[in-house]
Amino acid sequence: MKPVYFDHNATTRIDDAVLDAMLPYFQQEFGNASSRHSYGINARRAIDKSRRQVADAVGVQPVQVIFTSGGSEANNLFIRGAADSLKPGNLFISAIEHPCVLKPAQALARRSCDPWVVHQLAVNPSGQIDLDAAYRAMNEYKPGLVSVMLANNETGVIQDVAGIAELARAQGATIHTDAIQGLGKIPVDFAALKVHAMTLSAHKIYGPKGAAALIVDKRLLLKPLIYGGGHENGLRSGTENIPAIVGFGVACELAQVRMAGTAQHITKLRDQLEKGLVAMGAVIFGAGAERISNTCYFALPDIEGDTLVVKLDKAGFAVAAGAACSSVNPGQSHVLSAMQVDPMFARCAVRVSLGNSNILEQVEDFLRVMQCIVAELKQISSLSI
Amino acid sequence: MKPVYFDHNATTRIDDAVLDAMLPYFQQEFGNASSRHSYGINARRAIDKSRRQVADAVGVQPVQVIFTSGGSEANNLFIRGAADSLKPGNLFISAIEHPCVLKPAQALARRSCDPWVVHQLAVNPSGQIDLDAAYRAMNEYKPGLVSVMLANNETGVIQDVAGIAELARAQGATIHTDAIQGLGKIPVDFAALKVHAMTLSAHKIYGPKGAAALIVDKRLLLKPLIYGGGHENGLRSGTENIPAIVGFGVACELAQVRMAGTAQHITKLRDQLEKGLVAMGAVIFGAGAERISNTCYFALPDIEGDTLVVKLDKAGFAVAAGAACSSVNPGQSHVLSAMQVDPMFARCAVRVSLGNSNILEQVEDFLRVMQCIVAELKQISSLSI
Repeated sequence: MKPVYFDHNATTRIDDAVLDAMLPYFQQEFGNASSRHSYGINARRAIDKSRRQVADAVGVQPVQVIFTSGGSEANNLFIRGAADSLKPGNLFISAIEHPCVLKPAQALARRSCDPWVVHQLAVNPSGQIDLDAAYRAMNEYKPGLVSVMLANNETGVIQDVAGIAELARAQGATIHTDAIQGLGKIPVDFAALKVHAMTLSAHKIYGPKGAAALIVDKRLLLKPLIYGGGHENGLRSGTENIPAIVGFGVACELAQVRMAGTAQHITKLRDQLEKGLVAMGAVIFGAGAERISNTCYFALPDIEGDTLVVKLDKAGFAVAAGAACSSVNPGQSHVLSAMQVDPMFARCAVRVSLGNSNILEQVEDFLRVMQCIVAELKQISSLSI
Repeated sequence: MKPVYFDHNATTRIDDAVLDAMLPYFQQEFGNASSRHSYGINARRAIDKSRRQVADAVGVQPVQVIFTSGGSEANNLFIRGAADSLKPGNLFISAIEHPCVLKPAQALARRSCDPWVVHQLAVNPSGQIDLDAAYRAMNEYKPGLVSVMLANNETGVIQDVAGIAELARAQGATIHTDAIQGLGKIPVDFAALKVHAMTLSAHKIYGPKGAAALIVDKRLLLKPLIYGGGHENGLRSGTENIPAIVGFGVACELAQVRMAGTAQHITKLRDQLEKGLVAMGAVIFGAGAERISNTCYFALPDIEGDTLVVKLDKAGFAVAAGAACSSVNPGQSHVLSAMQVDPMFARCAVRVSLGNSNILEQVEDFLRVMQCIVAELKQISSLSI
């Protein structure tokens, strides 16, 4: 039997309705959307429909949607594409951004030609960007570009993007938000967040890997990352991945329909989970802040996260130690560092991220299993002293 | 009934075996390959297997395969990534490269910081790169980077990549080939082509859209286009599109198995097709050169390509006017311009690109339909004089 999946911030199982919508585009309507015959026309229509669905999910017009192959590409497209359309200056990102914002920003700072100066916005111990500090920093170093995520992938902490956007706009800066972990979990409205650009991704909302989008203000100046045939208004060339784009559109539609009910259900599960973990002596990171309802990022003193993940996998639960995207580069979580968590304690961090299909019984089973594992590990650790 | 598909250079229908291999990765093995639990481990194994299949198809080691989201991305990764790892200098491309090589090259030439000088290698009227001219040009302007395609997407003409590679290497240049249209149609061996990098794509060989690869010499210096979690040896970050990557691997394996038989079958069809077209007065572009066996690029005097494509679609045949990738940017084919085809005649160009499932009867039907359409159009045109 496969483990219970508790790692929805890493990726999600494609929804049946999403896969059903995708299937015809592999073998029946397999055309290249740039072709002028009927296969091509049908492929183009499918993209147009998905573009409307994605646009509707965040309250924008279809023309504002630039499809990309994934969230990392969309974030890179913004960071490099917007930077190369402006005079080099100050780029502000938060200290808890995903590596696909952090690393392209660092690359801009490192390059010999037209380098940007990168500033990191600090977070408080609850993992929230400190708005006062941001105000002071942006007043001192006038930002050209700002990028802050909507909800953190590790802690689930929701950031005051609109507040940061106001500070950024007051300085004449262009502001972007990586909203990947927010979409489908909290309302995400482009206008309300006051941003010029926003990243969304399909595979975190029960859609396919291989489709994502950069949503842009129509006046945003942007250079492409991928040049070629001129697809996506010249901003992202390459044959469109029709099945993935179709799936993304349906996933966006379903996310909107299901969000309210799902969030309520998942909040109950998460509260139960955290009650049990706290009773075992766990610390919940970001507990003092507003969070997306599915994420529980915790640590038990003296129990290494990596060990726990492996033991839980064998015991039937798939959870994460730190963010999946950093797991190929093991090391300490930069998010917990930014939250001033003691490095030794940060190594104990484990993330449970719940999803649509999780039920209370799974949470109860998980807590029972955790009790056993923790008891076992504590015994080993006391024997080894 | 759907039209007979004669546009395989634009994209192909996913093979049944390819789709079957992909399906488990949408809903059963849907993990993120960076996760450390069993879902993640199974996803990682699937990528490893595909990496071996792709590597085997072109005779390299798995570590030389960098997966990307598509051929355009892979070509851009080479052009920009290699250029930014060298001192700016001379970049040679052929005059008939796909826009996803041509446009990033032009972007390098246009940029204010560290611009490169782009030189276009001329082709002869048969669409072959002129090696003598290339030798002279490279002697005069020492190349740092060279990129020439293996088989042209419009004409199907096969280029002497190894010959160009020798010239490039003699000057100390790094040489890349876009082998997308060659893979599965002719043997493609990385070492035999003497290149440092090569682009392959899945959706032209009955694999899925959303997976491609840049194959690299292990010593090649390259900067990423997409920074982030450090996937693909740090050269292409972003959650891997597992189903697409799995499909790419299987498509590569099948392409190798089927190539010899398929090429023979398709050559027969193409010869029959061209005999019929020539009898109608058509000119076959690139007929004097070695070509991949599936491509027939022709023009009938005074019959516009666009008109013919629409009429053929209605009559049950999906063909292309010029390259699909340029169809979003209508205009004259730069390939035919480079071949010194008269601009008025170039507007008559139509491409038939055959595939695995096409049969002789379809070619015979096509020729009959063409007879009728041509007769009708000639009548209209004679009436309008």
